[in-house]
Order: sequence, then structure tokens, then C-alpha cells
Amino acid sequence: MVNFNDIQTAHNLIKEQIHRTPVLSSKSINEIAGCEILFKCENFQKVGAFKFRGASNAVLALTDQQAEKGVATHSSGNHAQALALAARMRGIPATIVMPSNAPQVKIDAVRGYGAEIVFCEPTLEARETTLNKVVETKGSVFIHPYNNDYVIAGQGTAIKELIEQKSWFDFIITPVGGGGLLSGSAISAKTLCPDCEVIAAEPKGADDAYRSFKAGYIIPQTGPNTICDGLLTSLGDKTFEIIQKYVDDIITVDDDLIKEAMKLTWERMKMVIEPSSAVCLAAILDNKKRFFGKRIGVIISGGNVDFSRKFG
Amino acid sequence: MVNFNDIQTAHNLIKEQIHRTPVLSSKSINEIAGCEILFKCENFQKVGAFKFRGASNAVLALTDQQAEKGVATHSSGNHAQALALAARMRGIPATIVMPSNAPQVKIDAVRGYGAEIVFCEPTLEARETTLNKVVETKGSVFIHPYNNDYVIAGQGTAIKELIEQKSWFDFIITPVGGGGLLSGSAISAKTLCPDCEVIAAEPKGADDAYRSFKAGYIIPQTGPNTICDGLLTSLGDKTFEIIQKYVDDIITVDDDLIKEAMKLTWERMKMVIEPSSAVCLAAILDNKKRFFGKRIGVIISGGNVDFSRKFG
Repeated sequence: MVNFNDIQTAHNLIKEQIHRTPVLSSKSINEIAGCEILFKCENFQKVGAFKFRGASNAVLALTDQQAEKGVATHSSGNHAQALALAARMRGIPATIVMPSNAPQVKIDAVRGYGAEIVFCEPTLEARETTLNKVVETKGSVFIHPYNNDYVIAGQGTAIKELIEQKSWFDFIITPVGGGGLLSGSAISAKTLCPDCEVIAAEPKGADDAYRSFKAGYIIPQTGPNTICDGLLTSLGDKTFEIIQKYVDDIITVDDDLIKEAMKLTWERMKMVIEPSSAVCLAAILDNKKRFFGKRIGVIISGGNVDFSRKFG
Repeated sequence: MVNFNDIQTAHNLIKEQIHRTPVLSSKSINEIAGCEILFKCENFQKVGAFKFRGASNAVLALTDQQAEKGVATHSSGNHAQALALAARMRGIPATIVMPSNAPQVKIDAVRGYGAEIVFCEPTLEARETTLNKVVETKGSVFIHPYNNDYVIAGQGTAIKELIEQKSWFDFIITPVGGGGLLSGSAISAKTLCPDCEVIAAEPKGADDAYRSFKAGYIIPQTGPNTICDGLLTSLGDKTFEIIQKYVDDIITVDDDLIKEAMKLTWERMKMVIEPSSAVCLAAILDNKKRFFGKRIGVIISGGNVDFSRKFG
């Protein structure tokens, strides 16, 4: 299981190529929420999301021999861009398997970072078959978006930084999708600030992590229905093990409240965050009593929004 | 005429109650534009706009005797909120004359800062008559949104800060509406960085400043047609005099390009800026040759966007 040493090693490895993102707060949001919220702004991270931390660590940890043949993954989200950029920065090839119906803006972004895209049918099966073929023919190293020790350790560096920047918290809250960010964050939080509670926030329309956490075994995500397009995946065995050990609670929230929290952040903080990032503030606003007067560290996971429709 | 001493005095007076806003840049926007752009982020200023600087200076410069009776203005924009907050911070009353068709979000914001709102018919005449009545009956001091020496000096502190933060520039670019920001900026820029060119950017659909600048006399704004709702006003005699003396050029830009520049800023910088703030980047993108390889300081004037439609 990943431990805090791995996160320290990861941080030393990636420090030079990631942004040490700022921690921001908003007086008016604090007033509305009734507590002190410190936002760790990974929307200002390279590629606009925390995913660059994990991808960077996974790529930099490769031996030269491994690296030579490049890396590969399946993703149409932030991990695809993150891996593409991390590979380009090391000067090695990256191949990204993407569903044929992926939005053009995501395809362009990945191509912009110089990765090769291999399209497949938009099914889980086709994705895995296609990826396996890439790995077989090219010898690329598969970097899973979250169920990978190096990725988990890399994601853990965001909370490590946050605690270095702001010392202590009563609560740490992160979104949960596949659990890479949550598990890495939980290890850092429980090591550096052992008295804090680590809480995950999840959309009600994709609450597999909540149900898995309560059941004690992984319940895969089926038919998710939420605007949080970064939180649609199921937990992995590696992330779930850590979550079971270190996470105190998972809170689920309605999409309406997530939209409201997103609007509030755009409006009051003049900061673009993606829906998947608004779930934490939504969880706080939905549980004001529980968080009243507390000091809360929240990860803003990313800021990648498709503006083509908004600006028409 | 306002001079740099007035701006220094203003800065000392308001320093404690304004934010020293950050200066941000974007690698990818610099690559697209072919130059180095440093954005002075007044969208992160209190009330979400540079207007708080001028309003603070005007309010803090009042004698106790003047202050006692409060301040008044006509505005449905950022100056209304700025004056309301500045008055509240000094503990004096503020009365804002607003057209009866002002958007609810603006009304709520001004009320939120504790000001009294007096509604009038949405005509220039009604606005002035109503304001005069307020000034007569209450004895309030009228703080004009831009044609006021204290306001001009206050707005000039943004570029003063920017040059303190980043030393030197080839160009300084600000939007122009009534000219308060532009005139204050020009004085600071030409004093602290005499070799830089000071340029204003203006939407083609409200190009009265451009036409006045070329004609040598004030041509009032009539029937403006642009998404830049902060840049619809005519120049004042005080601002025009300074602009004539210190400004090197005014560039006009199409709304389509302004929208594109706004989208680019939201997308790449994860930062919410209002349309009136995007006009400067649009001017650069429309004149790449002129700005190629140069170091440019740009004021992001504000981030107040009505999200009620965008988030439905």
C-alpha cells in the first residue's frame, strides 16, 4: 500500500515541473458557509487539474529503459492531457485511447500536447482491448488514471502542499471518482495533521464510492447521472483499500446544489472551476451545522470547462 | 489636472482597505499572442473591479464634516457597488440612483453593501434630476463615476502597483469607457515608466473615445452597441484632458474578437473576467505584429458577470 514516504519521494521528483498552486479563500463564501474554507487551487495546475501531479510522478518514476517505449492510457478526461504533457516533458511518446465520441475540445487538447490518439468504440470492453493492443505492439507502460501506486502518491502531494502552506485543518474534503486524489490526500492528511477528519464528497447521481464505503466492498459504478463528468468512474482495489483505512466519511450531494456551489465560486472568487470540483463546497453548504466554525481544506480539482456552448 | 503626487497620496490613503491584486500571466496566451502579457487582476479587487480604488479614495478624502452627510452617485455598474462598500467601510451613508430597469443582481449587490437605492426612469435626464434632488435634500457629496479628481487618482493606483510589482513595460493597455481608469493609468505609467506607450482599447460598437481622441474634442457616446456593458459612457472633460496629454493611441476592436479573448482568458487562465476587461487582449490579438515580442501590462478591470443565465 502507498505510504507517506512514497508521497514525499513523489513530491521531490515532480517539484520542479508542477506548479505549487495557491491557496485562496473568500470572505463572502465563508460567511455563507459559516466556516473557514481554504481552497487548494489545482485548477491553476498545469493542464488545469491535479491529475498532472500523478501523471508526472508515474512518468518520472520510469527507468530509462521503460520510458523509451513510452506510456499509454485510456481516458477522455484530465488524465489524458496530464499524461500527454508529462510524457512530452520527459521527451517520450504517449498514446491515449479515447472513445470515438469524445468531445473535440478534449481531442484537440491531447493532440496539442503531442500525444498520439487511438480511437475506439465508446464501451469499456473496446477501451480495454484497444489499450491492450497498444501496450502489446508498442511495449508502452500503461499508466492507469488512478489505480496505480505512483499516480496515488503523486495526487497525495496536493494535500501535503496545502498543509505545508496553511498548517492545520479540522477537515480535509476532496471529491471522489476513482479515488486516486482521495486516497493520496487521506495518507498526507492523516500523517501531517492526524487529528483532522478526511471526508469525500460525491454526486448523488454517481454514488458508488459512498455505497462501496458503507458496504465494505467495491460496488462498481453503473449508469451514472450527474454533471460531474470527472467523477463517473468506479473505485479501484488500490484506492479502495486506502480509503477504507484512512477516510472518515463520504457525503453525497444533489446536482442542483453542485451547480449552485459552482456558480458561487465563479461569482465570488472569479475563478473557473469544473463541476466535479464544486461537489466539496456543495457538501459543506448542505451540512452547515456539521462544519460550523471549522477550518476546512478543500481541493479544487480542476478548471476544465467546455466553453464552446457558453460563449456560443 | 490630477498629477502623480495625487496618485501617491491616494495610494497611501487607500492602501489598507484595497487588495494589492496579483499579476498573472499565461504561457499559452503568450504563445498565441506572440508577446509577454502581464495581467493586473482587478477582477480580484474588492467588489470585483478596479472601481473600488477610486471610490475608496473619494470617500476617504472627505472631511469629517462632508462625510457626515454621506455620498451619492448614479450608476448601475461597478461604481455603484464600489461606492456603497467604501461608504460602509467609513461608516457613512451612500445613496445610489439607479434606473428602474437595472438588473436584479446589481440591485441586490448594492443593497448587500448597505446603500440606499433611489430608482428613476432609465433616461439620462431622469438620472441627473433624481441625483440632484438627493444631493439637495440630503446634502450628500456627489461622487461622479469617473469625472472626479479623487476617482481618477484612485484608479491610477492600479498601474502604480503593477509597475512596482513588475518593474517595466513596453506597453500599458487599459480599457476605456468614461476614461477614469485610462487617465489615472496614463499618469502613473508615464511617470514610473516614461518610455512605455500607453494605449487604450475600446469596442468598435462604442468608439466615442477613439473618435474624440482623433477629433481633439469630446464626441458624446450615442446608441452604443457592444457586449462591453462597462464601456458605454462618454468621456468627461477631466479625463479627456489627461488622455489627450498622456495617451499614445486608442485601438478599437470587434465584439466577436472580444468574446474570443474573454473565452481564451476563462479557458486558459481559469479566471472570470467581464467582457469590458477582454477588450485589451482582443486589441493585442488583432494587432499581433505591432506587439510582437513586447512586454505588455494589461489591466483586467473586473470580473462581474451575471451568471444567472449561464447556469440556468
